[in-house]
Amino acid sequence: MGRMNDSTAREGRERPAPARSRLAAAQRERLLGELRACARGVGGEVSARERASKLGASYLRLDDAGRHEFLRLIALEFGPDPAAVAEAHRLFQQSVGTPAQWDAEMHLRAALRSSRIRLLTQFNALPQGVKFLVDLRADLLRYLADDAELAVLDRELEARLTAWFDVGFLELHRITWNSPAFLLEKLIQYEAVHEIRSWTDLRNRLEADRRCYAFFHPRMPAEPLIFVEVALTRALADNIQALLDESAPVLDARKADTAIFYSISNTQKGLRGVSFGSFLLKRVIDDLKRDLPRLGTFATLSPMPDLRAWTEATPGALPDSVTPEELEKVAAAAGRPLDPAGLRELLADPEWVSRRKLAAALHDPLLRLAARYLLEARRDGRPVDPVARFHLGNGARLERLDWMADLSPKGLRRSWGMMVNYLYEPEAIEENVERYSGRGEIAAAYSVRRYLKRPKS
Amino acid sequence: MGRMNDSTAREGRERPAPARSRLAAAQRERLLGELRACARGVGGEVSARERASKLGASYLRLDDAGRHEFLRLIALEFGPDPAAVAEAHRLFQQSVGTPAQWDAEMHLRAALRSSRIRLLTQFNALPQGVKFLVDLRADLLRYLADDAELAVLDRELEARLTAWFDVGFLELHRITWNSPAFLLEKLIQYEAVHEIRSWTDLRNRLEADRRCYAFFHPRMPAEPLIFVEVALTRALADNIQALLDESAPVLDARKADTAIFYSISNTQKGLRGVSFGSFLLKRVIDDLKRDLPRLGTFATLSPMPDLRAWTEATPGALPDSVTPEELEKVAAAAGRPLDPAGLRELLADPEWVSRRKLAAALHDPLLRLAARYLLEARRDGRPVDPVARFHLGNGARLERLDWMADLSPKGLRRSWGMMVNYLYEPEAIEENVERYSGRGEIAAAYSVRRYLKRPKS
Amino acid sequence: MGRMNDSTAREGRERPAPARSRLAAAQRERLLGELRACARGVGGEVSARERASKLGASYLRLDDAGRHEFLRLIALEFGPDPAAVAEAHRLFQQSVGTPAQWDAEMHLRAALRSSRIRLLTQFNALPQGVKFLVDLRADLLRYLADDAELAVLDRELEARLTAWFDVGFLELHRITWNSPAFLLEKLIQYEAVHEIRSWTDLRNRLEADRRCYAFFHPRMPAEPLIFVEVALTRALADNIQALLDESAPVLDARKADTAIFYSISNTQKGLRGVSFGSFLLKRVIDDLKRDLPRLGTFATLSPMPDLRAWTEATPGALPDSVTPEELEKVAAAAGRPLDPAGLRELLADPEWVSRRKLAAALHDPLLRLAARYLLEARRDGRPVDPVARFHLGNGARLERLDWMADLSPKGLRRSWGMMVNYLYEPEAIEENVERYSGRGEIAAAYSVRRYLKRPKS
Amino acid sequence: MGRMNDSTAREGRERPAPARSRLAAAQRERLLGELRACARGVGGEVSARERASKLGASYLRLDDAGRHEFLRLIALEFGPDPAAVAEAHRLFQQSVGTPAQWDAEMHLRAALRSSRIRLLTQFNALPQGVKFLVDLRADLLRYLADDAELAVLDRELEARLTAWFDVGFLELHRITWNSPAFLLEKLIQYEAVHEIRSWTDLRNRLEADRRCYAFFHPRMPAEPLIFVEVALTRALADNIQALLDESAPVLDARKADTAIFYSISNTQKGLRGVSFGSFLLKRVIDDLKRDLPRLGTFATLSPMPDLRAWTEATPGALPDSVTPEELEKVAAAAGRPLDPAGLRELLADPEWVSRRKLAAALHDPLLRLAARYLLEARRDGRPVDPVARFHLGNGARLERLDWMADLSPKGLRRSWGMMVNYLYEPEAIEENVERYSGRGEIAAAYSVRRYLKRPKS
Repeated sequence: MGRMNDSTAREGRERPAPARSRLAAAQRERLLGELRACARGVGGEVSARERASKLGASYLRLDDAGRHEFLRLIALEFGPDPAAVAEAHRLFQQSVGTPAQWDAEMHLRAALRSSRIRLLTQFNALPQGVKFLVDLRADLLRYLADDAELAVLDRELEARLTAWFDVGFLELHRITWNSPAFLLEKLIQYEAVHEIRSWTDLRNRLEADRRCYAFFHPRMPAEPLIFVEVALTRALADNIQALLDESAPVLDARKADTAIFYSISNTQKGLRGVSFGSFLLKRVIDDLKRDLPRLGTFATLSPMPDLRAWTEATPGALPDSVTPEELEKVAAAAGRPLDPAGLRELLADPEWVSRRKLAAALHDPLLRLAARYLLEARRDGRPVDPVARFHLGNGARLERLDWMADLSPKGLRRSWGMMVNYLYEPEAIEENVERYSGRGEIAAAYSVRRYLKRPKS
Repeated sequence: MGRMNDSTAREGRERPAPARSRLAAAQRERLLGELRACARGVGGEVSARERASKLGASYLRLDDAGRHEFLRLIALEFGPDPAAVAEAHRLFQQSVGTPAQWDAEMHLRAALRSSRIRLLTQFNALPQGVKFLVDLRADLLRYLADDAELAVLDRELEARLTAWFDVGFLELHRITWNSPAFLLEKLIQYEAVHEIRSWTDLRNRLEADRRCYAFFHPRMPAEPLIFVEVALTRALADNIQALLDESAPVLDARKADTAIFYSISNTQKGLRGVSFGSFLLKRVIDDLKRDLPRLGTFATLSPMPDLRAWTEATPGALPDSVTPEELEKVAAAAGRPLDPAGLRELLADPEWVSRRKLAAALHDPLLRLAARYLLEARRDGRPVDPVARFHLGNGARLERLDWMADLSPKGLRRSWGMMVNYLYEPEAIEENVERYSGRGEIAAAYSVRRYLKRPKS
Repeated sequence: MGRMNDSTAREGRERPAPARSRLAAAQRERLLGELRACARGVGGEVSARERASKLGASYLRLDDAGRHEFLRLIALEFGPDPAAVAEAHRLFQQSVGTPAQWDAEMHLRAALRSSRIRLLTQFNALPQGVKFLVDLRADLLRYLADDAELAVLDRELEARLTAWFDVGFLELHRITWNSPAFLLEKLIQYEAVHEIRSWTDLRNRLEADRRCYAFFHPRMPAEPLIFVEVALTRALADNIQALLDESAPVLDARKADTAIFYSISNTQKGLRGVSFGSFLLKRVIDDLKRDLPRLGTFATLSPMPDLRAWTEATPGALPDSVTPEELEKVAAAAGRPLDPAGLRELLADPEWVSRRKLAAALHDPLLRLAARYLLEARRDGRPVDPVARFHLGNGARLERLDWMADLSPKGLRRSWGMMVNYLYEPEAIEENVERYSGRGEIAAAYSVRRYLKRPKS
Repeated sequence: MGRMNDSTAREGRERPAPARSRLAAAQRERLLGELRACARGVGGEVSARERASKLGASYLRLDDAGRHEFLRLIALEFGPDPAAVAEAHRLFQQSVGTPAQWDAEMHLRAALRSSRIRLLTQFNALPQGVKFLVDLRADLLRYLADDAELAVLDRELEARLTAWFDVGFLELHRITWNSPAFLLEKLIQYEAVHEIRSWTDLRNRLEADRRCYAFFHPRMPAEPLIFVEVALTRALADNIQALLDESAPVLDARKADTAIFYSISNTQKGLRGVSFGSFLLKRVIDDLKRDLPRLGTFATLSPMPDLRAWTEATPGALPDSVTPEELEKVAAAAGRPLDPAGLRELLADPEWVSRRKLAAALHDPLLRLAARYLLEARRDGRPVDPVARFHLGNGARLERLDWMADLSPKGLRRSWGMMVNYLYEPEAIEENVERYSGRGEIAAAYSVRRYLKRPKS
């Protein structure tokens, strides 16, 4: 949302620039000393927290290199003592099968406990402590890409955040045009699927025939963790433009029979691996059913973000999806001879969309391509498409492919304007999850599966 | 705020168009019957309120002509009985000076009590009853312009609204970027002094060095009744552009010494004559002092909305404000000979603003004109300028004239870009009010008064 | 609630005793001057309010005699000018029947407007301004009993309070065991029908099969204005002891078919004549229906507070209610000869209640007495019983007389333990009100009316 | 709080009695199957949570024996696989000192991760999930007393609760007479130091010169976790009777110079080992300072709960505290010859308190005994007195012994009516903690230490 965040906003302009500091040896020593004092709890827990809170403030003043070193210090200097672990392990293995096993297990676990998490937890004393740690993990994840030794710290932090952000602690709130402006502004900033172009666009997404829900953590009340935008419609929506059309009439919500989840955005990079998307959908469906008992169909209108990238990385993908007859028809409509390579080129220019005959000729080949992408392109037995992985993992069914469903530049670039509906059928969810997680089977409607058939040539 | 309200907003598009209905004789009779039943309280108060609430709903479905007749019915058919009034009056006058006078006064007042207000009060049972009556009065005021017989009803309704909107019932709330979006949207719609051009403009007006306060009525929580926008500054602001500049740095509010009230907007036409502006300023000043004890100066940066109109309607105004020498200088700067009529013409084209020499030559004459306008142009002994009447009536002092203070098209059109500061000095307020309300004396700083001096020629 | 308010509570013990002050002539003059300054609005409305607020504070420091004189000053010194009224009246009568009538009416009303209400309204600027005025009126009503000249002020104040406490402004809140303790303490203090004996008794009245609702004014949030206690039962309750039994099992509210209003208490003496009881019942019934759709019967279990007093003041009442045969039976059960005077004596000692045979012999005569009291004992065409007046005026039906329904000392003293059910049948309410308010007809079930039959002797 | 909870309360009487069930083999197998399905996350996380929530409900229906077995199942069947642990440990020890160490540590920790906590966490999906787990741990702690094999599960649960109840998540709320009655009722139930005898007693503890604060968890809003009662006084309080006297005058809080913490109660047995008492005191002191800047002294008035028990278990304690001369004086006052054993007997009868001379003679010996108890009676280098351990561990100083400070039966029985003040001096806290936690040194004022001197004989 460029316009909202651009350089004309006066906010924050008094914030001092972070000092460009490399950690000098002396500074490093001082820091290490302070970390050790915190870890030991010198002067009692209360004092330790106060010291940690100062330490947290200095972390915020460090530049990226400094923060990286700070985190390395925690990762590498505060691990468990290998000798103590060895001894506890010896006793544990000795005791296996005896009544002493449980006690020994407990002691082994204690020996393996590091001071890292104790240190990090103390930062929770900062005024925005939880947010601080979530942002610290976002830093950590960036450094981790090039510094695998941080993984041990990341895993401990992830475990702690998983405990803290347990779905049982999250609060589901509906977001409406009555919500505070600063919160709505965050939706504009965080929306990751279909950009919110203006406040009018936003208000349109909060009209009487729309719903928006988010999960919040009680200690981060100003930050939606994940949010979903829902359109209440009659029949399955097949087109995102129509849903976002600000001039379309507003439907009486009580007359809707279908809820379309058309955008789900995670907002906190530091919570990677802490998942609550499936719970969000479950609770939103429950809430919608209670409010609007006429709703019978719950489905998404979803992008296929990597279709184009996969096609380009998979040499046979496009050629195999088109029969010679179809290729001829396309060539005829395009007004020039075409081989598969030429087809790729033709598709690279969005101009084809506006040429009716050409588009018609491309319909079957592209849908076939999309069906293969979703159903057959796998990595570790799971679909390569991340959106498919999410919804199928939650027990949804691949219900329908939508042609010319998102003609925005992004939509054309990523999936030639196609989208897909995933259907959440409460009674089928559990079985779908089992078959998917066990055997990697994907629940898909015939209208999708039929595109897998070998095209008659 | 065109953009916010334009035809692309989907909201309300299902609201049925109001039925185009003239009150036919039959309908009129039916209505009159229903009004009488309400006024009599047939079936008890509870039933009467329910009936009134239906009647209120039918009022909303009437077109303008229908509503006008509806209000005439109430005004003309539900007055007191003149004979009963005469008898009660006779007894009252007889009793004057005796202990029975007070009882007789009470009975005379009762005899004069009409059923009109009882009827209107019953509409309070509607879900948004108070807002309904405020809007009904807005209708009434429109019809009143051409139908003086409605005045009696208007006066009764005004008295009731004055009781209901007593300042003791109003709640002062600060409005911030945390406030609900629908409320902020209302600021955009209602802002009457300096148009809010966008959500970014609005956010700028709610930054850390700005304040916005509004009065609310407990039964109209979604409607600010009046709101004031305040800028926290160092020294008296002399320029509205600078205050509204979205790219200006944000001042640390605790360092400000001056609070500038740069916009006050009443929002409810139906509350004409029910005044709370002076209380709003008083309470805002109290709140600011408590929050930011360093604030020492409380002043406005105000427009002179009718300066141009008054100048044009007052033949001598402009010629008398310029000396021959000054006129010559202006002519020289303009590059053409000028008589007073030519001067008027010259000023009609905002182009003079950007010509430095010309503007310099116009400085003294225009400020002189403004000083006379504020200090000498009177109607009923009070200044003709409505903003001056408001602030002087509240005990403020005319502190300074500001040159090139509002170069927006509106500012140039209305007062050739000049503005004025009114200063609220807590210790002087009471005396200022007394001198103003008693003898029409205007408190004004020397820097303003000196422009009244006959220009040396 | 002696225990709650007794001398052991430490609260308020630092409050200084009010100064015993008679209004000396000088003080009276000073006060009059200040009142006049307020009434004139010297120094502007804001200053006037501030002055009024100081005046209000001095009122609170006055003793009763001082307050009485203060109110007399307002009543007698701030009335309208009789000469101005006479002139306005002349013009009004002249204009009757002409288009100028409405304007003249408006002016007559203005001439009759006193400064009293303006003065009182200004006290609204006090922090607890509304409560101040309500309490001031409670004072006024006390003085009024011996000083009829205050009636004119009382009537104006009542009119203003009626406007301010319009039912449209009141908020219905449910009171539960979750409510603030200070609020629950007020229920204990204000309960006027069946004393709340302890916090355990109170908690019992807020259990899952009980409801308690109150009206609040937005400016008196700490004061319930009126509250009603409801028991959810199966079938019409005929016994208050059973309802208040702390050891009775709690009914699942969803299984209840009947809501019994067993206690309604007004709390503010200063709001005499401002009625909201009927609205309270209406809104509570609506709320209960929405919450618990199984509820089909809405009725009261009510006392007959003046039955005993009326019986004693009405020589024939008791003798006419008993046949010679019945009197004989009573005498036999009592074990001594009895004439009607003796009967009265017998009833004065509550001991008869515990003698089964005696009680059985008294059953018919006493119910007959009660039926006559409710249906035939009238004043100005309305029942003498205040509770009956309230419920019949609201459209309820006298449904049943309850024998041995309140055996508390108060219940025995006031109505020999009998109570009565009033039934609110939504469809019948309007007609009941009309028949009652028009012709004084009382809706009563046969089970009550049959006791009016002349006893066969 | 017998009176509040006794059999007259109607609440909860519809709750069915828990089924007396031993876990039959079949039931045990079924349960184990369900636990395994939850642990595996069959059907996805959402379904697993739903299944866990049903499992949690069945736990609540089990009797104590059943619950014990249920917890044993979790403790013993869901531990880590020893072989996998052994392998991960081998790789870890191999990698120590190499860059692979951190990765190996991470894998060892993963291998040691049990499914127990995953199972328990899933119960968080229950409506009152957090409270459920806290109460489950209270059960667990009871069974643990006789079943050491549960320790491993307890330690894992404690670790999870420690994460969840991190002080950074707790909310400090002030509790006043405005708080919900159900919450105040909980204070009455949970108060562990000085019983709250009635609602009047409670109200007295919430008067203007009292404060009460509690920590709450956002997911247990109806449960105070720990609360402290504070009296605002002039000078250090030396007597609990005076503080709780309902008829004592209320002090203007702004005039107080001292805050006395006279009661601190933990409420949740299931949170044993999760400590927040020191944070509570810290935050309350901060809040009090902000509110009432005149407060300069923060201290407790505390019991010595085990003085009597320790004295009786320590043969020399009493004899060593009294000199022969003192013993003689006591004997004289008592009117009979006394040896140390007789002294013990004399003290057993509280009657001595009311005999002035006798009490005077006992003053020095008993204070000497108390000083030794607090300063010299140690276990593992820490004082045996639990209250002393708590406050000294938080950095307080033993400030004064108070004679005849708690003459309640409990106070006399436990410590012959003596109490003690611990002083919190912000500047000294950190050093006190260090000296105490390091060398076991106790900060104590001379007025206490002087009683350690060998009595001159």
